[in-house]
Amino acid sequence: MSEACNSCSAAGSCTTDSCSNEPKLTEAQKASHIDKVIAVMSGKGGVGKSSVTGMLAVSLMRQGYKVGILDADITGPSIPKIFGVTGKAGVSNAGILASKSRGGVKVMSLNLMIETEDDPVILRGPLITQIVNQFYTDVIWGELDYLLIDLPPGTGDVPITVFQSLPIDGVVMVTSPQSLANMVVRKAIKMVRNYKPPIYGLIENMAYVQCPDCTKRIEVFGKPQGQEEADRTSIPYLGELPLDPALAELSDAGKIEDYQSPIFDQIAKRLADEIRKQSEKNLA
Amino acid sequence: MSEACNSCSAAGSCTTDSCSNEPKLTEAQKASHIDKVIAVMSGKGGVGKSSVTGMLAVSLMRQGYKVGILDADITGPSIPKIFGVTGKAGVSNAGILASKSRGGVKVMSLNLMIETEDDPVILRGPLITQIVNQFYTDVIWGELDYLLIDLPPGTGDVPITVFQSLPIDGVVMVTSPQSLANMVVRKAIKMVRNYKPPIYGLIENMAYVQCPDCTKRIEVFGKPQGQEEADRTSIPYLGELPLDPALAELSDAGKIEDYQSPIFDQIAKRLADEIRKQSEKNLA
Repeated sequence: MSEACNSCSAAGSCTTDSCSNEPKLTEAQKASHIDKVIAVMSGKGGVGKSSVTGMLAVSLMRQGYKVGILDADITGPSIPKIFGVTGKAGVSNAGILASKSRGGVKVMSLNLMIETEDDPVILRGPLITQIVNQFYTDVIWGELDYLLIDLPPGTGDVPITVFQSLPIDGVVMVTSPQSLANMVVRKAIKMVRNYKPPIYGLIENMAYVQCPDCTKRIEVFGKPQGQEEADRTSIPYLGELPLDPALAELSDAGKIEDYQSPIFDQIAKRLADEIRKQSEKNLA
Repeated sequence: MSEACNSCSAAGSCTTDSCSNEPKLTEAQKASHIDKVIAVMSGKGGVGKSSVTGMLAVSLMRQGYKVGILDADITGPSIPKIFGVTGKAGVSNAGILASKSRGGVKVMSLNLMIETEDDPVILRGPLITQIVNQFYTDVIWGELDYLLIDLPPGTGDVPITVFQSLPIDGVVMVTSPQSLANMVVRKAIKMVRNYKPPIYGLIENMAYVQCPDCTKRIEVFGKPQGQEEADRTSIPYLGELPLDPALAELSDAGKIEDYQSPIFDQIAKRLADEIRKQSEKNLA
């Protein structure tokens, strides 16, 4: 019985096949089972959403979960590159086959469907949102504990479609220290609240650079404001991350899965706790 | 006589008022005269497009030019904040009045039209592009030597509209050292070439951080690749900029006009040369 059954006159005398209230599933959806769908968002571009999405996927994999990433940044996709996934996506009768990283993260991105990785995707909103929808409905994700959605910057077509059409369980918000970034991130937070999914927490990325010679902590974007911003917007604060040349280098080499970050592991642990808390709240 | 006159049967016997081939100008357009319209673009978010746009405006102002900035990043606007422009935009019978920074840069942004600066603008593409168009046609820009257009990330609705509908004279491309960023910037370059305006040059932003204690040059996003990237795509290379905490601080305080950067002044000078060369080429 789904939630829709409660208000259905045929409840009890129906079968799943005959139910007219159940959304019609595609073949790809029938071949998939996704436990939690989590959007990674910031509103602001370049705060490291894709890196955080990637690290989160790796961290969840290491904890034994099955993880997929839906790259919803259609015109500026980063996910295949940082995971070193280069082949074209396969297709079967049932739908599009998600590609797999070396470590086993399933990935779908428009960059796995175009001829050359730097070909531009010059499309207007309606076509872009149709692609994002199809990445959910027509991709054979198989069994996943977590599907992470890497959102593009802004509060336009793609986030609107994702929050309206996909069953988002919660959102991870990423910011960087500048007030400017926080202003734009606050726009994103207000947007999410319009659509109701819980925000699991705020991660402050690029909080500082550590000088490799003298170990000085250089706050390149100004004083970190993540904790303050999280308090102001009543969101759990998950922690701060440095701007780390090693991450940039591994991402460029398609080897984000080789990146080791005890700081990020702590953040992922806090996030897992928040997801658990939220699930318990939903069940209560 | 405009270009359209060459193929017009009424050429010579007409007046501007009676011409049916001339586009109809709005009152705001009649009250404005803009010499050069320049788009600042990267495709990739967070490489510092808005900072570069701001610094460019300041640099041109200091050289004695009249400058305006059209903030086309409707869902993630930064320009009013970095210039400390906070009041709402005024309106007259002829159109919307561009706001003015302390130093005299004219600014138009959706953040000058909403109640609270962190209210989200949750709009789909067609409405967003209509706003961008109106910022050109319905804003009284007055006399400007340069109108800079700060584009949002991506190659979607806004860049498409800007290149299709506005009389763009040329484009400044901004990148940052990561291969990942360059891949996305290359998409933007290919897009611009579809629409024909010349690319004046490539600026590599966030090329390094200088340690304030030991002066070490830390390449946080990896080895700069701007010159190489410019050569590969046959675009003039304008130079590299550091990631400077002083700029972040002044931007957050709305005082980008107080920022002094001899490095950027050199870049602006090279850009002015490229614009001049391009104009001479067009006249030849």
